[in-house]
Amino acid sequence: MNFNPTPRILMGPGPSDAHPRVLQAMARPLIGHLDPEFVALMDEVKEMTQKCFITNNHLTFVVSAPGSAGMETCLVNLLEPGDECIIGINGVFGGRMKEIAERCGATAHTVEVEWGKIIEPSMIKDALAKCPKPKLVAMVHAETSTGARQPLEEISDLVHNAGSLLMIDAVTSFCGIPLKVDEWGIDAIYSGTQKCLSAPPGLSPVSFSDAAVKVLENRKHKVQSWFLDLSLVKNYWAGAKRAYHHTAPVSSVYAIHQALSIVLEEGLENRWARHNEVHLYLKEQLENLGFKYLVEEEFRLPNLNAVILPSGVDEASIRKQLLLDYNIEVGGGLGAFAGKIWRVGIMGESATKNHVNALIGALKELM
Amino acid sequence: MNFNPTPRILMGPGPSDAHPRVLQAMARPLIGHLDPEFVALMDEVKEMTQKCFITNNHLTFVVSAPGSAGMETCLVNLLEPGDECIIGINGVFGGRMKEIAERCGATAHTVEVEWGKIIEPSMIKDALAKCPKPKLVAMVHAETSTGARQPLEEISDLVHNAGSLLMIDAVTSFCGIPLKVDEWGIDAIYSGTQKCLSAPPGLSPVSFSDAAVKVLENRKHKVQSWFLDLSLVKNYWAGAKRAYHHTAPVSSVYAIHQALSIVLEEGLENRWARHNEVHLYLKEQLENLGFKYLVEEEFRLPNLNAVILPSGVDEASIRKQLLLDYNIEVGGGLGAFAGKIWRVGIMGESATKNHVNALIGALKELM
Repeated sequence: MNFNPTPRILMGPGPSDAHPRVLQAMARPLIGHLDPEFVALMDEVKEMTQKCFITNNHLTFVVSAPGSAGMETCLVNLLEPGDECIIGINGVFGGRMKEIAERCGATAHTVEVEWGKIIEPSMIKDALAKCPKPKLVAMVHAETSTGARQPLEEISDLVHNAGSLLMIDAVTSFCGIPLKVDEWGIDAIYSGTQKCLSAPPGLSPVSFSDAAVKVLENRKHKVQSWFLDLSLVKNYWAGAKRAYHHTAPVSSVYAIHQALSIVLEEGLENRWARHNEVHLYLKEQLENLGFKYLVEEEFRLPNLNAVILPSGVDEASIRKQLLLDYNIEVGGGLGAFAGKIWRVGIMGESATKNHVNALIGALKELM
Repeated sequence: MNFNPTPRILMGPGPSDAHPRVLQAMARPLIGHLDPEFVALMDEVKEMTQKCFITNNHLTFVVSAPGSAGMETCLVNLLEPGDECIIGINGVFGGRMKEIAERCGATAHTVEVEWGKIIEPSMIKDALAKCPKPKLVAMVHAETSTGARQPLEEISDLVHNAGSLLMIDAVTSFCGIPLKVDEWGIDAIYSGTQKCLSAPPGLSPVSFSDAAVKVLENRKHKVQSWFLDLSLVKNYWAGAKRAYHHTAPVSSVYAIHQALSIVLEEGLENRWARHNEVHLYLKEQLENLGFKYLVEEEFRLPNLNAVILPSGVDEASIRKQLLLDYNIEVGGGLGAFAGKIWRVGIMGESATKNHVNALIGALKELM
């Protein structure tokens, strides 16, 4: 059986359109995962991932599984039974962090705000007053379920003054909006490949600060996941002698290598600017059609536009027609927002005015 | 930066050579992971995976991570803190199962034999006498570290008579040698994509019997891994309404779909016969060169030939020359066998007489 997917225009919450060079990279012949050429490739992937995170962290690499596994990698390695942590929840993914933290045997104190709002530094301050030295404080930089952009610098100071680690979900922000791991003092961070990096889903770039590495080295219990245990994985990605741990997903590493190269050719700042420019172009036209943004302007993600539909519009039916008649994918709402909002992604290769024009043209006919 | 790997002839323990159709499938444009076309593709992958496992198990699907994560999926879902299990160890991968079982909070009773030997039914009988009703008994069908093929039918009866589940590692046997999940009464099984299936590494086909599903449904504790928790994953792969869990690795699913199609076009039995025929052709010539098989003939894997080097041969140097001068990859030994054996894989697309002739010709020059 052959599978020839209908070409789609991907403007949902991910995957975004992949660059043809990335798709071509996936089709290169396989080589062994311990081949010296592959080891050199891993080194380049590591170096480019550091550049895109803007970090010098030695423990920077790619988890051989999607973003959710990146989240789990950070939590299972940093938390142990009996630990306390503070987790900011303003959408689906903060909730998922709490769920995983609890499965690590940790107590998760939550700072919850209405979906679409951001966590205020004062809220973290209050939480730290009640739980003065948590192992870590975690939150989502770019909430894919709501389109909110969480400022991190002020919170980072509060967290470090408390002697805790700052852990960040950057699945949707990496390579799309400003994200400065070292400058902002982020201790553990994970992302995905299928958002602003525009590679196929399946891998998760992660990075740990020296302070986080110290926590890893002083664990009392073994990490509950063998597959995600960084004390083992790090010898594969960064050991002097590449010790076999698992078989790396060779083709996916080819793809992320090419995608990171494309990001660095464009330049991070140019890429951030492009996402913002296309966002403004999209925003004006969506608002003309009666869509309203869920998140207030200051904290709005440019790359993931969460918009409330004009009243009287049957969202599911129009979204289906967009997909089947125009081959354009946009995302529906999750959780409480199901049926109420759309999530329009302009990420990576999907952040072009042509994408916006295709979508707006189709919507004008459908609505 | 572009990466253009030197074309290799892959005759190690995996990855094996991928079929050009599989590589082309990886390069197809991305579609959304909830696109109706992708959902239909997942259904086809599930159905073909059932056929290749020779099972009707409803809970058959593909883990979005490599074989080691498949191993962890089986163990973390079936074992809970306080459980007992019996694990057969005759190589690296049995040892890894024990390691993971203990991280689940279970007590692992081991049946250990010399690497390269198989676990005798009498040994399992003895272990069951000491631990009469373990939650599961686990072992490796095809030990990639030693080339041993573990017979399972007699052991399966013992395990089921004890009221336990039989869990099997089929990473290297799936689609290469006879493997009959339902007929042999295997309750939980996982494999990889980069061995006899000849797809890129990165996914793990798994299957659970109804008896295993009953154990999942009666768990007292949440599964320690959120990413691998089948109570969540199964709604994504097999639920009436595909509930979002994580973003599937779209391109890798294209690849496994194509690879499974190729297996079924050839026919499982023809494929098993081909592996055996090429094995006999390889064996004769390796023996002529002075290599000796590690495993006795009856229990030898045809697809993963673990051979002791003729005395006086500098294995590392010749293996390096094979790779760099002839672009042929063979595997070295793991653990106690490092420096002593080679592991010559003839798996999937790498199981041809042309592969054997290339290797033997090169060895004749080098040795």
